[in-house]
Amino acid sequence: MNRKLTIAYDGTAYCGWQFQKNGISVQEVLQNALSICEGECVSVIGCSRTDAGVHAEMHVSNYRAAGRIPAPKLPFALNTLLPSDIRALKCEDAPEDFNARFDARFKLYEYKIWNAPHANPLLCRYAWHYPIETDFAAMCAAADLIRGERDFRAFCAAGSKVKTTVRNLSVLSLKKSGSLITVKAGANGFLYNMVRIIVGTLIYAGNGKLNAGDIAAILQKGVRSGGGITAPACGLTLKEVIYGEDDEYAKREAE
Amino acid sequence: MNRKLTIAYDGTAYCGWQFQKNGISVQEVLQNALSICEGECVSVIGCSRTDAGVHAEMHVSNYRAAGRIPAPKLPFALNTLLPSDIRALKCEDAPEDFNARFDARFKLYEYKIWNAPHANPLLCRYAWHYPIETDFAAMCAAADLIRGERDFRAFCAAGSKVKTTVRNLSVLSLKKSGSLITVKAGANGFLYNMVRIIVGTLIYAGNGKLNAGDIAAILQKGVRSGGGITAPACGLTLKEVIYGEDDEYAKREAE
Repeated sequence: MNRKLTIAYDGTAYCGWQFQKNGISVQEVLQNALSICEGECVSVIGCSRTDAGVHAEMHVSNYRAAGRIPAPKLPFALNTLLPSDIRALKCEDAPEDFNARFDARFKLYEYKIWNAPHANPLLCRYAWHYPIETDFAAMCAAADLIRGERDFRAFCAAGSKVKTTVRNLSVLSLKKSGSLITVKAGANGFLYNMVRIIVGTLIYAGNGKLNAGDIAAILQKGVRSGGGITAPACGLTLKEVIYGEDDEYAKREAE
Repeated sequence: MNRKLTIAYDGTAYCGWQFQKNGISVQEVLQNALSICEGECVSVIGCSRTDAGVHAEMHVSNYRAAGRIPAPKLPFALNTLLPSDIRALKCEDAPEDFNARFDARFKLYEYKIWNAPHANPLLCRYAWHYPIETDFAAMCAAADLIRGERDFRAFCAAGSKVKTTVRNLSVLSLKKSGSLITVKAGANGFLYNMVRIIVGTLIYAGNGKLNAGDIAAILQKGVRSGGGITAPACGLTLKEVIYGEDDEYAKREAE
């Protein structure tokens, strides 16, 4: 049978989601534990190949197995074998054709910036410490220019190969609470490093290195080198993956 | 001169704030770094002796030194010597009679509970994972009984010696957001383990082990053994210490 597995992880100790020859990946650790649980070698397909150090509150994968443990009980068994920085949250028997990667309709990421002269030790694994004062209104104005359905090739790591660089970034919102700036980015799909480059560009808008005209030009020209730096991985968390209708997130937020 | 120093720390690696023969304390690490910065042996007085594993977003201490580095610059120097789980946030020259411990008028703690079948790996250092379903309304009702100025000796670790066990717990509020329950507790002072025993008692109210009558009886009899367990240290964070007027926090929250 085809199983849909939802997990969460602290990515600090891993070289990312995907298998790597030179490091320990979340996929490798998960697959090893899952193979013991299921009593057979399983191979998982993940919804998103998060980078080294990126976290996930909700990461979905699917795999095929005979299913000797009932799906609702599997997370309890699996969590006895997983390290504490990876937790299985839910397992469901899925339709035969369900594919965690290709069926994902919407993904929501959150990026945390600790914008204060000194770091917050309680957030050092989960936020980018950016010590220079920023203009939050300018960051929000920049987000207004970037949000929407458009060609995001300027916000894609150089050298990555994809068929199309058009994405519908329907959500790009910023919130400030004390020294903590939280950026939410939701789209039907993301390019390689897209959220981190957008965050780096928002910071450049906030510190005055880029103005509105610069950002419009970056989007129009589509050249990576014009934008901000790639923000560090630790601030990024995959919050949600939606497999239902495209506008499920928008509908829920509107309620 | 007398200096007022504000720091933040992740308490996971420490045996608590206070010096211990058998472990590394925040006080010891801070004092060593501070002595190098100030160029003389300094001794700090802390606002609160947090337990092993308890965190602080704001912890205030004072110490006497000649002050060879201007106060506003000291945190930058100090942070180059401190480990990343302790950060100096602010240093001010204080009145000669300022005492971080005895002058504190109000302290605010926050306790996080992750109330879901499986743990949240992003909160495993900062929340108590309590897997059993709880009745949130019953927890709030219990908090209403506990809040106020009263004798809290039932919520004090057995064997601790203090002149009086009367405290004014003016703030005791609960918030639920998904699986995360956040308890805020603010008072003019706290007894040993008071917040953690209150949280354990609120959980017992939520899981049905204690009803409203039981909680009223615990408060009246004043015996520790009647209440809930002492909630684990990791969920607790000292959020704020106020040295101004007693009602500064209440006034700000009311705005």
